[in-house]
Amino acid sequence: MNICLINPNTSASMTTAIEAGAKSVASSNTSIIAVNPDSGPTSIEGYYDEVFSLPGLITKVKEHKDADAFIIACFDDTGLDAVRAMTNKPVLGIGQSACYIASMLSETFGVITTLDISVPILKNNIYKMGFGRRCTSVTSVEVPVLELEKQSKLAICKIRAEISRLISDKKVESIVLGCAGMVEFANILEKEFSIPIIEGVSAATVLSEGILKMNKSTSKIGGYAFPRQKEYIGEMKKFEFKK
Amino acid sequence: MNICLINPNTSASMTTAIEAGAKSVASSNTSIIAVNPDSGPTSIEGYYDEVFSLPGLITKVKEHKDADAFIIACFDDTGLDAVRAMTNKPVLGIGQSACYIASMLSETFGVITTLDISVPILKNNIYKMGFGRRCTSVTSVEVPVLELEKQSKLAICKIRAEISRLISDKKVESIVLGCAGMVEFANILEKEFSIPIIEGVSAATVLSEGILKMNKSTSKIGGYAFPRQKEYIGEMKKFEFKK
Amino acid sequence: MNICLINPNTSASMTTAIEAGAKSVASSNTSIIAVNPDSGPTSIEGYYDEVFSLPGLITKVKEHKDADAFIIACFDDTGLDAVRAMTNKPVLGIGQSACYIASMLSETFGVITTLDISVPILKNNIYKMGFGRRCTSVTSVEVPVLELEKQSKLAICKIRAEISRLISDKKVESIVLGCAGMVEFANILEKEFSIPIIEGVSAATVLSEGILKMNKSTSKIGGYAFPRQKEYIGEMKKFEFKK
Amino acid sequence: MNICLINPNTSASMTTAIEAGAKSVASSNTSIIAVNPDSGPTSIEGYYDEVFSLPGLITKVKEHKDADAFIIACFDDTGLDAVRAMTNKPVLGIGQSACYIASMLSETFGVITTLDISVPILKNNIYKMGFGRRCTSVTSVEVPVLELEKQSKLAICKIRAEISRLISDKKVESIVLGCAGMVEFANILEKEFSIPIIEGVSAATVLSEGILKMNKSTSKIGGYAFPRQKEYIGEMKKFEFKK
Amino acid sequence: MNICLINPNTSASMTTAIEAGAKSVASSNTSIIAVNPDSGPTSIEGYYDEVFSLPGLITKVKEHKDADAFIIACFDDTGLDAVRAMTNKPVLGIGQSACYIASMLSETFGVITTLDISVPILKNNIYKMGFGRRCTSVTSVEVPVLELEKQSKLAICKIRAEISRLISDKKVESIVLGCAGMVEFANILEKEFSIPIIEGVSAATVLSEGILKMNKSTSKIGGYAFPRQKEYIGEMKKFEFKK
Amino acid sequence: MNICLINPNTSASMTTAIEAGAKSVASSNTSIIAVNPDSGPTSIEGYYDEVFSLPGLITKVKEHKDADAFIIACFDDTGLDAVRAMTNKPVLGIGQSACYIASMLSETFGVITTLDISVPILKNNIYKMGFGRRCTSVTSVEVPVLELEKQSKLAICKIRAEISRLISDKKVESIVLGCAGMVEFANILEKEFSIPIIEGVSAATVLSEGILKMNKSTSKIGGYAFPRQKEYIGEMKKFEFKK
Repeated sequence: MNICLINPNTSASMTTAIEAGAKSVASSNTSIIAVNPDSGPTSIEGYYDEVFSLPGLITKVKEHKDADAFIIACFDDTGLDAVRAMTNKPVLGIGQSACYIASMLSETFGVITTLDISVPILKNNIYKMGFGRRCTSVTSVEVPVLELEKQSKLAICKIRAEISRLISDKKVESIVLGCAGMVEFANILEKEFSIPIIEGVSAATVLSEGILKMNKSTSKIGGYAFPRQKEYIGEMKKFEFKK
Repeated sequence: MNICLINPNTSASMTTAIEAGAKSVASSNTSIIAVNPDSGPTSIEGYYDEVFSLPGLITKVKEHKDADAFIIACFDDTGLDAVRAMTNKPVLGIGQSACYIASMLSETFGVITTLDISVPILKNNIYKMGFGRRCTSVTSVEVPVLELEKQSKLAICKIRAEISRLISDKKVESIVLGCAGMVEFANILEKEFSIPIIEGVSAATVLSEGILKMNKSTSKIGGYAFPRQKEYIGEMKKFEFKK
Repeated sequence: MNICLINPNTSASMTTAIEAGAKSVASSNTSIIAVNPDSGPTSIEGYYDEVFSLPGLITKVKEHKDADAFIIACFDDTGLDAVRAMTNKPVLGIGQSACYIASMLSETFGVITTLDISVPILKNNIYKMGFGRRCTSVTSVEVPVLELEKQSKLAICKIRAEISRLISDKKVESIVLGCAGMVEFANILEKEFSIPIIEGVSAATVLSEGILKMNKSTSKIGGYAFPRQKEYIGEMKKFEFKK
Repeated sequence: MNICLINPNTSASMTTAIEAGAKSVASSNTSIIAVNPDSGPTSIEGYYDEVFSLPGLITKVKEHKDADAFIIACFDDTGLDAVRAMTNKPVLGIGQSACYIASMLSETFGVITTLDISVPILKNNIYKMGFGRRCTSVTSVEVPVLELEKQSKLAICKIRAEISRLISDKKVESIVLGCAGMVEFANILEKEFSIPIIEGVSAATVLSEGILKMNKSTSKIGGYAFPRQKEYIGEMKKFEFKK
Repeated sequence: MNICLINPNTSASMTTAIEAGAKSVASSNTSIIAVNPDSGPTSIEGYYDEVFSLPGLITKVKEHKDADAFIIACFDDTGLDAVRAMTNKPVLGIGQSACYIASMLSETFGVITTLDISVPILKNNIYKMGFGRRCTSVTSVEVPVLELEKQSKLAICKIRAEISRLISDKKVESIVLGCAGMVEFANILEKEFSIPIIEGVSAATVLSEGILKMNKSTSKIGGYAFPRQKEYIGEMKKFEFKK
Repeated sequence: MNICLINPNTSASMTTAIEAGAKSVASSNTSIIAVNPDSGPTSIEGYYDEVFSLPGLITKVKEHKDADAFIIACFDDTGLDAVRAMTNKPVLGIGQSACYIASMLSETFGVITTLDISVPILKNNIYKMGFGRRCTSVTSVEVPVLELEKQSKLAICKIRAEISRLISDKKVESIVLGCAGMVEFANILEKEFSIPIIEGVSAATVLSEGILKMNKSTSKIGGYAFPRQKEYIGEMKKFEFKK
C-alpha cells in the first residue's frame, strides 16, 4: 500500500523528519512518500498561515492521486475536511490521529504545542472531535515551529518541564505532542516518564495502514461528499474540482 | 464609518444583492462597499470550495485595509478566523451574526440552508459558537446557491414549506436563513409567519456598526494574535503577512 | 427610534450613569430614556434582591409601552424572560449583550463581577446562553454594587488587578465587566490593556439599535409567547396581563 | 418535623390537592402544612406569571419561618433559588424533586407538562440541573393548569396518549408529570403502564423528610448565601431581608 | 419496610459502621440489614477490585430478595446497573445518593475520595449522572480505604485540610465524602465548616425510604429490563438469571 | 506480534467467527489467538450478563499474559477498564475501536445493535468516549445475539432495512455494527450502500497492530494504574492481583 504524507508547510527538512517518523513504524510492504507544497509558508502558526498552505497541499494531493491514503502532517489538521471531500481514500490528520491513539491508552490526555497562537485552534479541533472532556489541557512551550529543529535541545528541555508539571499538577495520564516538528521527541521523552507520549506522524501512519487493511473508504454522504462541479475563475481556475 | 463587505465567491450579481441588503439597514453615515474576489469559485458549497475562496478573500481585505470593519458574506463564515488574525478591526461573519441576532429574539432557532453538503459545516460552526443546544435544527432545501437567484420563486417556495414544517413539527422559535444568496428572502417570508426570520447580511451590518460605535477592536491575544512574520515561498509569497 | 433602559434597582445615580453610557454610543436619531423602579432594592446582589426588583421593573415597561425596544440594565439580566414574554418589541439584557459582543471580538472571555454571591447566577445565565465553554472564568472583586460608585478608585484598582491576573494566568482574550455599575470603567481600563473590555450598557444599546434597524421582533412562539390572560388576586391584581 | 408546602399560585383547590398528595406519602410524625399566597396569579403558565407569584410566595415563607423545610409546589420551581437564599433550611422544588426521583429509577425520563409556553422554562431548568441528556423529551398536552382539575378526565386521557406515544416512539424509561395540578394522576396512570410515573409533590415531600432525617441544611456559600442587608424603597420596602 | 444494605467489599467492620450510619437516619419502622459478600476483595480501589466484588454482591441480593429496597454501599456504585436489572425494587448506590442530596442543598459540590486510582471512576460516574458541571472537583487524600478505619484521626485531618483548601481556593459550596469508609466523618467535620458535608450511606437510606413511601419501582424498560433467560456454563452457571 | 482476542461470552462458534474476522485483516506476521471463557453466559445482553462474563474474561487475560496486546471482543467493551488496569499492554474493546474508525471516515455515525436492552449501555459508553454528538443514533434490530448466527439471513435483512432508514431519515454518514456477532455482515452490507460499514473486530485488530508498531503501552497513571495488592477472601481469592 502507498501512503502519501503531506507536510503542509514548505520546510523540506521537516518533511524529511516526518518521512523518517512514518517509516519507523510502517510495515515493510507499505510505501511511504512524504512531500510538501512548492509554495506557501515555511511553518504553520495560526489561522493565517493555514490559509496559504492549502492550495499547495491540495496540489500535492492531486499530484499523488494514486496513493491509497493521505496523511496531513500538521497538528492543526490543516485542510483535513477539504481533502476528505476530494477523495474517497482514507485521509488522516496527525492531530486527530495522535488524540485517538492517546485515548486508547488512557482516559484523559494533555496536549503540548509550540505557541500560544495555536492553542485555541487545537482546542477547537479537539472539541469538535469530541474530546473536550478527555483532553484536560492544551498548553504551549512558546518555541516556534522552526526552532524545534534548530534548537532541539532547548525545545526538549522545555517540553520535559511541561510534562513534569502536567503530571504532578494535573495528573495527566498521557501526553500528545502537538506539532509535526516534535516527531523525533516522543520516544526520547517517553523513556523518562511513566506515561505514553504520543506524536501524530507515527499515529497517522499506523491508523492509515489499519484502515487500508480494513479496506475502508471515506464516507461520501454529508460534508465529505465530492465537491459539486462548478466554475472557478481567475488564478484559482486550475483548482476546479474534477472527479 | 466604512464597512467593507466581502462576498467570498466570485458571483458579482450576488455581491450586488448583498450590497443592497447591507445598505437597506445601514445608517446614513455608514459607507458600505461590497466586493468579491477576482479569483475563485462562483459559489461556496462545501469544504473544498471554501479553500479556494480564501486567497481572493484575503486579497480583498488587504486592498481595503482602510475599512473600519469587515464582513465576510458567506454563511459558512469562510476565513473568519484568518481575517480576524490579520487585523484588529472588527470582523463579522454573516453566519455568526445571524445566529447571534436570532438568539436575542428567541431561545432557540433553526437554520435552513441550500444543500446537504453544507449542513455539517454549519453544525460544526454553530457548535463551536456555543449554540449547539439553542440551534435545534439545521436542514437544507437542496437548492444550489446560484439557483437561489435564477429560480428564486421555486427557492422561496421550498424554504416556505420548510419553515412551516419546522414550526409545526419542531416548534422552532425563529428561523435563520443559511446562505447569503437568501438575503432578499427574509423580509418576504417573515410577513407570512409569526416568527423572526433572520438573514446574516443585515445582521452583520448592524452588528458591525454597533461594535464601531462602541469603538471596540478584535482581541490580539490568543488565536487572533497577529500572524508571526515568516517566509512564504513560491506562488504564495505575495501573501506573506506584513503588519 | 426610542429605547427605554430600565435599571431594575432603585439607585437613581446609577440610572444616570447608565443613561450617559447608553447615550455615549447611541446614534443621534436614537432617543434614550433611562428609568428605574419606584420601589425595590437599591442594588441587586443575589437571587433574593432580583425578586423584588421585578414588579417595579415590569411597571416601568408598562409605563413606557411606546418604546421601540427595552434594555434591562442589570448584569443578571433580571426579568429578561418575563419582559420578553410581555412584548414583541426587542428586549435586551446587558449581561447577554456584553457576552455577545465579547464573543464577536475574541474566542473566549472572562467576566469580572462585584460579589461572590452573584457568580453562580452569572455562570448559570452564561451556561444557558451557550457560552459555558467560551466564558473561561467568572470571578468577583468583592466590591458591593453601590461601592463601585462611592469608591470608584478602589474598585477600578481591584478590577485592574483581576484583569492582569486573568491575562497572565488564564490567557483570557477579552473581559466583560459584570455589573451595570461598572459602565464608566470599561473605556478607562481598556486603555491600559491590549484586549477588549466590554460593559453591557453600551453593548445593549448598539444591539437594540441594530435589531430595530433590521425591523425584527421578539418571537411569540415558545417561552416568549404572550402571557395567557387570567385572574390575578390581591395586591398583585394590577399586574394582570392585558395585551 | 414540620414541612411547609407553598403552592405559589392562588388556587386554593389546587393547594388542597397538593396537601393531600404530600400527606399521602409523609411519615406519621411529619406535620404538613400547605398554603398559597394571598395575592398573585391563579395559575403559573410562563415567565410572566412566575414574577407575580414570587412576592406572595416569599411572604408565605416568612410567615412559616419555623417550618423545618419548605417545598415550592410549582413544577417550574418558581423562586426556588431566592427561597434557598433566605434560609438555611432545606428547600425543595417539585420540579427538581420529580426529576431526581425519576433518575433514581431509570437512566432516562420524559416530562409531560400542560402548555407549550412552559416547555422552554422546564427545558432550561432541567439543563441547569444537569439532566439535559437524561431527560429525553419535554412535551405538553396543551391543557391549561386550571383545566386539569375542571376537566380531569380529558386531561388524563391526553396524558395517557402522550405516555403511550413516548413509550413506543421514544422508548422513554419513566415519566415525570410536569405540573402540580397533576398530583392525583400519577398513581392512576402508573397502573396502566409498566414504567414509573412520578409527580413532584410526593417526591419533594419524601426528599424533604429525608434531608431532615440527615439533619442537613442549605449551603450558605455561593449563590445561596444569605441576602446582603440593604435598603428597599417604596412598596417593596416590607421585603427588606432581615436574617 | 426492609432495606438491605450491601457493602460490596468483604470487610465486616466496615459493614458494621455502614449499618450504624444507616440506622442513625432510618425511621423507626424501617428494618435495616447490612451485609457483605462472603467472597471478594477486602476493599474496592479501582476497576479491577470492582469486578471481583460483583458475584458476591449479587449473591447477597439474591439471598435477600424479600427486601423492599437495596443499597449498594460503595461510593463507586459498583454493580448498580446490574442489580437494577435484576429487580424492580428500588436500588440505590451511595455515590449517586450523596451527589443527589448535595445537589439539593447547593448548586455545586466537590467530592473527596481515598485514592487517585478512584478519581477517574468517580468522574465518569458523575459525568454519566449529569453532574459534570455541578461537581466542580473530585480529589483524593491518598489514604487507602482500610486505613480510614485504622488511622481515622490522620484521615480526618487530611480530609479537613482538603475541605479547607476547596472552600478557599475553589469556593466549593458543599462536600461529598467519596467512600463508604468515611461514613462516620461527615457529622464530625460538618460542625467545623459552614457548608453541608454529605456521605452516601445516610443519603441512600433516606432516599430508599422515600422511594418506598412513594411506592415506586425501578423501570423495566431499557437498560434495566430484566435479564433475558439464557444458559450460563461452568463455574458461573449458578448465576443464571431466574426471574 | 501476538494479539489475544477474548470473546467474553462462552459461545465457541462466535469465537471462531471473531478469529476469522481478525485474521482477515491482520498482517502476516501477526499471530492471532481467539479464546473465550470456560465459564459464564453464552451471550452478553445487558448489564447482568456483563458481570458474569468478567471472571472468565480476566482468567483468560491471565492465561495469555505473554500476549502483546488484548482485544475484548464484545461491543459493550465489557471489562475494558479492569483489563487495562491489569496490564501495561495495549487493550482494545471492539466497541471503542469501531467508533474510532468510523470517526476517521465520517463526521457522524450511527450504531445498530441487537436488542433494546443494550442501547443504554452503548449510549453511555459512547458518551463517555466523547462521541455523544458525533454518534447521532443508537438503535436495535431486536435480534438476540445468538440468533445473528442461527438466522443470519433474517438478521442481515433487518440490519439492511435499518441502514436504509438511517441513511434516508437521519442522513447518517457511516454505520457501526454494534455486536461481535455481526462480524461477518459488514463487508456484505457495505457493498450495497455508499457509506462505510464498520464492525469492531477488524477495527480492534488493526488498531492493536498499529499501537504495537508504535511501541506504546497503556498509561499507568490514573484509573488504569495497577491494582493495589490486597487480600481477597473466599471463592474469589484466586483473583488477588499479583503484578
